[in-house]
Amino acid sequence: MEQLPLATPVAEEFANAADKVARAYRTIREADRPEVWITLRAEATVLAEAAAVDARVAQGEALPLAGLLLAVKDNIDIAGLPTTCACPSFSSVPEHTAPAVARLVAQGALVLGKTNLDQFATGLVGTRSPYGPVRNGLFPDRVSGGSSSGSAVAVALGMVDAALGTDTAGSGRVPAALHGIVGIKPTLGLVPTAGVVPACPDYDAVTVFARDLGLATTVANAMIGPDPADPRSRPWPADAPLGAPTRATLAVPAEHNLTALTPAYRAAFDATVDRWRAGGGEVATVDITELLDAATLLYDGAIVAQRYAAVGEFLSGEPAGVDPVVAGIIRGGERPAAHAYVTDLGTLAHAAATARRLFADYPALLLPTTTEHPTIAAVTADPISINSRMGTFTNFCNLLDLAAVAVPGEETADGDPFGVMFVTPAFADQVGIDLAARLLGEPVPLLTETGTDLLVVGAHLRGLPLHHQLEQAKARFLGEVRTSAAYRMVALPASPPKPGMLRVGAETGSSLPGELYRLSPAALGTFLGNLPAPMTLGKVELDSGRWVTGFACDYESSRDATDITTYGGWRNYLNADR
Amino acid sequence: MEQLPLATPVAEEFANAADKVARAYRTIREADRPEVWITLRAEATVLAEAAAVDARVAQGEALPLAGLLLAVKDNIDIAGLPTTCACPSFSSVPEHTAPAVARLVAQGALVLGKTNLDQFATGLVGTRSPYGPVRNGLFPDRVSGGSSSGSAVAVALGMVDAALGTDTAGSGRVPAALHGIVGIKPTLGLVPTAGVVPACPDYDAVTVFARDLGLATTVANAMIGPDPADPRSRPWPADAPLGAPTRATLAVPAEHNLTALTPAYRAAFDATVDRWRAGGGEVATVDITELLDAATLLYDGAIVAQRYAAVGEFLSGEPAGVDPVVAGIIRGGERPAAHAYVTDLGTLAHAAATARRLFADYPALLLPTTTEHPTIAAVTADPISINSRMGTFTNFCNLLDLAAVAVPGEETADGDPFGVMFVTPAFADQVGIDLAARLLGEPVPLLTETGTDLLVVGAHLRGLPLHHQLEQAKARFLGEVRTSAAYRMVALPASPPKPGMLRVGAETGSSLPGELYRLSPAALGTFLGNLPAPMTLGKVELDSGRWVTGFACDYESSRDATDITTYGGWRNYLNADR
Repeated sequence: MEQLPLATPVAEEFANAADKVARAYRTIREADRPEVWITLRAEATVLAEAAAVDARVAQGEALPLAGLLLAVKDNIDIAGLPTTCACPSFSSVPEHTAPAVARLVAQGALVLGKTNLDQFATGLVGTRSPYGPVRNGLFPDRVSGGSSSGSAVAVALGMVDAALGTDTAGSGRVPAALHGIVGIKPTLGLVPTAGVVPACPDYDAVTVFARDLGLATTVANAMIGPDPADPRSRPWPADAPLGAPTRATLAVPAEHNLTALTPAYRAAFDATVDRWRAGGGEVATVDITELLDAATLLYDGAIVAQRYAAVGEFLSGEPAGVDPVVAGIIRGGERPAAHAYVTDLGTLAHAAATARRLFADYPALLLPTTTEHPTIAAVTADPISINSRMGTFTNFCNLLDLAAVAVPGEETADGDPFGVMFVTPAFADQVGIDLAARLLGEPVPLLTETGTDLLVVGAHLRGLPLHHQLEQAKARFLGEVRTSAAYRMVALPASPPKPGMLRVGAETGSSLPGELYRLSPAALGTFLGNLPAPMTLGKVELDSGRWVTGFACDYESSRDATDITTYGGWRNYLNADR
Repeated sequence: MEQLPLATPVAEEFANAADKVARAYRTIREADRPEVWITLRAEATVLAEAAAVDARVAQGEALPLAGLLLAVKDNIDIAGLPTTCACPSFSSVPEHTAPAVARLVAQGALVLGKTNLDQFATGLVGTRSPYGPVRNGLFPDRVSGGSSSGSAVAVALGMVDAALGTDTAGSGRVPAALHGIVGIKPTLGLVPTAGVVPACPDYDAVTVFARDLGLATTVANAMIGPDPADPRSRPWPADAPLGAPTRATLAVPAEHNLTALTPAYRAAFDATVDRWRAGGGEVATVDITELLDAATLLYDGAIVAQRYAAVGEFLSGEPAGVDPVVAGIIRGGERPAAHAYVTDLGTLAHAAATARRLFADYPALLLPTTTEHPTIAAVTADPISINSRMGTFTNFCNLLDLAAVAVPGEETADGDPFGVMFVTPAFADQVGIDLAARLLGEPVPLLTETGTDLLVVGAHLRGLPLHHQLEQAKARFLGEVRTSAAYRMVALPASPPKPGMLRVGAETGSSLPGELYRLSPAALGTFLGNLPAPMTLGKVELDSGRWVTGFACDYESSRDATDITTYGGWRNYLNADR
């Protein structure tokens, strides 16, 4: 498999891990937000680990995440630290670290501690915890959002570089929206959930918070991949798209789908759509009523039995320190009948089919992440209905097997963060991230190492007649490159005009310019299957010495064609005054 | 997409549909098995349709299934005929024909009628029907097997060429085993279940019975493909395997997994394994206890709620003509709690992961299809436990998302049919069919039209050093072919030795021999990505005039290599006394 090193060079940014750790603990002390952490590790312990990472880097070891400071939601196991799920009586100390965390630590990340959450990851507000309601990082009288409350605040206040959350109904996205940070909720099964206390075993995802999308993507990338301990983990399919279309039309909800938004958030959503348009993007209005209706099954239908199956038996023992709202919801999952559950699965299957039809027409659905930003006092007074409303746009994603990335949209008029989500089909995570990056004006790395690189030197170059084939292949543009000085180019008598490139060796060859793309295995196979004579694909040498799959042509066609090597590439030849 | 016409030439075989119909109705009358049919269409009506098909064929229309005589299980809708599910009070006349049937009729198939079944497709015996217990086609005192009882007997007694069944727990396989015929149970979602009365909505497959595997495969092929009316229908993935390995080691159950078999069936299973070995195949013993245990959830766990969700509400009205055993099972599906269902889903997820690990090591699992062949009297006396035991090896397939094909194994010592199944992962249906064909010594067509053809002319030929790459690609061998007379071949200085083939044109070229394979898009893309210089892939012209993807090599490498065209192909060159 061909690969370029594309990840953000985290290691350089965090070259001195020990200094970073010391600064982080100072930030934590100064922030005076004790409710963020359920377990904060001793500074000296983490400093010692940082020194060890620094030493390994100094000795030349490749640790892509060296010095990345990490907070982990306290429903994810780390060996030796208690896992509480924000319920003290549930606490136990696991022997094994969840693979999602272990993969980051293996690349040099440093865990500062375990963060507060809505108990048993049940809630979108951040107030449902005996360890204290988590105050918003920017507006302390308002909610942090949840359930991954502490993780989001830790990132927003600069205590850590990135934090892990989990997301069943929006828990990895809503708190991102309320802090103006990024939350990536990968496709179910991409990041193993082994070592994660389930909220809804079939619908839980491990998520990442970071202040910029590039870093969040790098961290997600490092966690992705099946693990034998998670029977629900899934590999990338052979046709996973690796890039978003150059000209993208986003689906946006119809007016009547947006009535749950406060006026301030409604205006911010419009402003965000305007920003997308101003950047050259387009939108089309779609009715997503069926998706929003499916979302209600998570709590109001039989699917809530997932929560009872997860921790209902524990709660039946009337343990201490249980949040009454959370316990009420989970205990409600004892009642529904299995046949009602099956009926609800049927409703979800229909809604998922509707979503597939939507995504056949649009690469992503742009949605508000949440509906409002309530005060802690308001949620305390009304602990259920505000929380429910806040999940209007997040609840259906995992039920319908969709991926989502939550990023900052336009702030409200009074400076409150407002967030949007790019929702895509399962395994189209990269498409959502690419489109989000376009909105933010940030470059992003690849979420996956899979795929094969393809060099194009002729009619497939950007702006030329066959470039659309690479768009159809959902290929990712990696950059402009040059061949080694061993090639010649001829103009073939083809329509549209095409060059043929031949390897002739260093004595008589030249270096020629081209563009490098990455395609999924299936897209490359389809591309080859559709390739007409006389074009061929094989290995081509770049000036870096690397060999990549690229174009040539058959001997008969090149034999009598005009040599155009001296033009220095196909674009020059086309532009030349011949 | 490159394609060869590979399907069995059904149209030739059944050239005079009207004569066939007349013969079939004579067979039906002579057989005197009225319990086979719930609705037998009037002979004159079908004769008229046959005449219309004959006329269309005579006018040159391509109808691949022209004159195929078909029986359809009476839980599958055909517009204008009642759908009863073997429950008279459930009967209603649908307006639309199920897409699975409509696709066959569109290709020229003729439906003779709707067949008897275990009521609501609940049972593996064939006796649970107010339309009469269905007697075995070969041994009338014994059960036909069910629930697709009438369909299997109609095929076994030659009333029709093929019949459709459904299979949730084994209903499309057990009756095949008890008649020495073939039953294909495709991967869930490949054949749309729209217009099929659900037994377990998430675990129902439409199946095919036929007397030979080739015809069954052709019929299944014609039914496959997503339908918008079925939200659970699924397309072939981009990496679906298209062929079984040349040297296959089958997994067979451990001794203690086979205790449910009667001694006669136990001996027949051993004899069938011996036949496989005698044909050059190998077997390895695996413990499948976890798969067999998962199967028990279908009736003894919460999954039985699927049946209540399907028709429980109808049964709650105490309708007439309900089989008491069936009603008891389905009504039992009202009781389980949704959280128990979720827990059972978790058990299934673990068992599915175990199955994936098994199939990482073996292309298929060879199992007895059922455990015994009871008399109707025995089942009447003990209507539950014999039926349960008969599903020992079939029950887990759909729960774990596996494909299966049931074919005749070695008969018992007293001439009773005994059947085996080739069980494969989802979407590896073709692998199971290919391996079954190897056991039977029958050629089989492809189950899918997807994939791209690849011509190899050198080291990838059968028996040569790189052929294993095509095995790894799960490619299918299509046949030996020749290029058009426009190519030359050189011997490249490579290790292992490889030829380079160049298109030079008709004036100086020759026709060269090669082998044609079909690969999935993902396999072809991976093959190209791994292809080292100087080899290339592009379009090559066959002597038929068809262009297929095939090998060439880069110009520099061919320039100074020795021309070996006159040897007439790479094998000749290797074998030549040079």
